[in-house]
Amino acid sequence: MPQDKKVSLVVIRRLPRYYRYLSDLLSQDIRRISSKELSERMNVTASQIRQDLNCFGGFGQQGYGYNVEYLHEEISKILGLDQGYNTIIIGCGHLGHALANHPGFKRRGFRMIGMFDISEEKVGKQIAGIEIMHTSSLESFIEKNPVDIAILALPKEGVLDISQRLIASGVKGLWNFSSVDLEVIEKGRVAVENVHLSDSLMTLAYKIQERETYKNQSE
Amino acid sequence: MPQDKKVSLVVIRRLPRYYRYLSDLLSQDIRRISSKELSERMNVTASQIRQDLNCFGGFGQQGYGYNVEYLHEEISKILGLDQGYNTIIIGCGHLGHALANHPGFKRRGFRMIGMFDISEEKVGKQIAGIEIMHTSSLESFIEKNPVDIAILALPKEGVLDISQRLIASGVKGLWNFSSVDLEVIEKGRVAVENVHLSDSLMTLAYKIQERETYKNQSE
Repeated sequence: MPQDKKVSLVVIRRLPRYYRYLSDLLSQDIRRISSKELSERMNVTASQIRQDLNCFGGFGQQGYGYNVEYLHEEISKILGLDQGYNTIIIGCGHLGHALANHPGFKRRGFRMIGMFDISEEKVGKQIAGIEIMHTSSLESFIEKNPVDIAILALPKEGVLDISQRLIASGVKGLWNFSSVDLEVIEKGRVAVENVHLSDSLMTLAYKIQERETYKNQSE
Repeated sequence: MPQDKKVSLVVIRRLPRYYRYLSDLLSQDIRRISSKELSERMNVTASQIRQDLNCFGGFGQQGYGYNVEYLHEEISKILGLDQGYNTIIIGCGHLGHALANHPGFKRRGFRMIGMFDISEEKVGKQIAGIEIMHTSSLESFIEKNPVDIAILALPKEGVLDISQRLIASGVKGLWNFSSVDLEVIEKGRVAVENVHLSDSLMTLAYKIQERETYKNQSE
């Protein structure tokens, strides 16, 4: 459960990374870790770790470090992973297909309960054990099966219309893969997280340019 | 071309977004825009826009605003998009397939020149007009066709080995879709940008929890 005081998005974006490292530690049967050791593994400063976790109430103990299992469980609660999320995918092209089969989602409590597409050719086929339904049956499906998260893996052109329908049906969060800045449009009517793949690739382009510049300067 | 002074990653991550909005403006034939107007469209403050663009030398003119085409071109140069990037994809599952067909990449100068997979079944088939090659021919291919960027769309288990081979072959940037924190491991030997899909989905989960908390508090 999130805290009363609003935590900055920069800190929140680091929480899943802590969760991921803690999961790894647990799978290696490491039960206790100092902030120094965790900081070396994650390549961030120990003081940042302490500060970040303090936003959610601490969890560390002077001279003992962190109890990995406890911290893992607490972050899981903060993210709501302990209760899980009913999730559907809109758009069953290659991206939707890849996301339906992503190994990490189910393990983290994201239950894939429906797949939708507008193509009659795809309707009735199965992806990851789930039968694809026609987008026209979206509302009736959600009425019977409450949906927390909808993954938008459809072309940009269809995104705004589908978002309206999902919000009206009570879906709580949209995970958007189109280049539409959905949170600017929806302004708080629903939780939105965008994955702008082009932006990420262009950021890599910048990093490459930057490395080349420094290399040339030091030659 | 990046500037002499190192620009913070937070600012850099916003550049592609500016680029995206400027492309939209150009396609609507809007040639001139004030920072106020741009800020309203992008839902950020006008002062942040001015500050961000000042990191790269300004571009704005008091009382005139921004020349959209010029600014678009300058950001394109900063990101190296004007010269373009030779790009290959390793891993031709659904994700690799989706990325090869992404409409925005080619337009922005990312030229897809090779696709690789270890599965004999896939080798020889075509994706987006490119024939899939066996991963064993990676080095000989790169020797003949210099590669700037490799997209890692293969399972986590193969990522470290492939990265070593790509770096040794002179590839400049890795776009990594596996949950491995590659930049921690490679420490500056190559430019790395990770797309951690699970982290993004967990961030959405947090935003949902947060909205629910506020809703309950205000009821």
